[in-house]
Amino acid sequence: MPGIGPKTASRLTFYLLRSSREQVQALADAIGQLHNKVVTCSMCFNIAETSPCAICGDAQRDGSLICVVEEPLDVLAIERTRAYDGLYHVLHGAISPLEGVGPEDLKIAELMQRLRRHPAEEVILATNPNLEGESTAMYVSQQLAPLGVRVTRLAHGLPMGADLEYADEVTLTRALEGRREM
Amino acid sequence: MPGIGPKTASRLTFYLLRSSREQVQALADAIGQLHNKVVTCSMCFNIAETSPCAICGDAQRDGSLICVVEEPLDVLAIERTRAYDGLYHVLHGAISPLEGVGPEDLKIAELMQRLRRHPAEEVILATNPNLEGESTAMYVSQQLAPLGVRVTRLAHGLPMGADLEYADEVTLTRALEGRREM
Repeated sequence: MPGIGPKTASRLTFYLLRSSREQVQALADAIGQLHNKVVTCSMCFNIAETSPCAICGDAQRDGSLICVVEEPLDVLAIERTRAYDGLYHVLHGAISPLEGVGPEDLKIAELMQRLRRHPAEEVILATNPNLEGESTAMYVSQQLAPLGVRVTRLAHGLPMGADLEYADEVTLTRALEGRREM
Repeated sequence: MPGIGPKTASRLTFYLLRSSREQVQALADAIGQLHNKVVTCSMCFNIAETSPCAICGDAQRDGSLICVVEEPLDVLAIERTRAYDGLYHVLHGAISPLEGVGPEDLKIAELMQRLRRHPAEEVILATNPNLEGESTAMYVSQQLAPLGVRVTRLAHGLPMGADLEYADEVTLTRALEGRREM
């Protein structure tokens, strides 16, 4: 398991041995129920306890806006900003020929189907600003073109608290290209 | 001197003692000439060997574009991108009430005077994306408003290679707000 090597594993084992039989059984049950309780939302493919998930089922949210992300954790990151009230679509990865991940391995066909059934006004491509994320954004935007939906991409630029002096060339170039009227 | 503690200082001293008398004298002369050889460009206030500096004097560059930065090192950072061919204006700092730096301590009046003499089409405010840099950009843009010049700000957003999952809330919010059509 990630972050748990032999030393941590034995520490955890001895902790469980010292715990009461009931506590250990409760943990075993919780882990055993994990796959029963957690489902994938049939709308946005986020990991959730219900399908449709709490976000897709929330009538207060703006259904005309769909934010496409790579992973469920990205949904959490955007939710933390409290700056977005639309819906999501989780691709479960990014196109990566090196790792053998192609468009057909991602929830792209499902996004197309979803948009044909429930047309949206804007699709925000919020894949990561790296090679895989950019390729994925490019591919998805080409797929979306025939639908005539507005397709946007998260802004590239200087992160808050950054120092121009230490910014990498690509980020600084993007910040210059993407400059906005004040 | 920054980055030179007692240990490095003695290492450098012993290096100089092992070097030839001529080499040491050459270094001493170079340091002695520093303030004689280095001037501040009367146009952009960048540190240079001539005034006007090599950038201000370059007829190939776009004189209708002025990029306002805090420090001379920021000019070097933007030059490294090779994505900008306009001129610069170095403020020599940012507004910081905590450190007692007010607008009158910066080359803002000089920027106004320069623009009145040589009107530009666009002023790009490239101060750092932190509290001081943002305040400075805000102040300068207010000062520039009566001149009717187009004022832009470097894009805020996700830096290249970043991961949405680990992006701070403010950066992610700015990236969402600043999203662009694909």
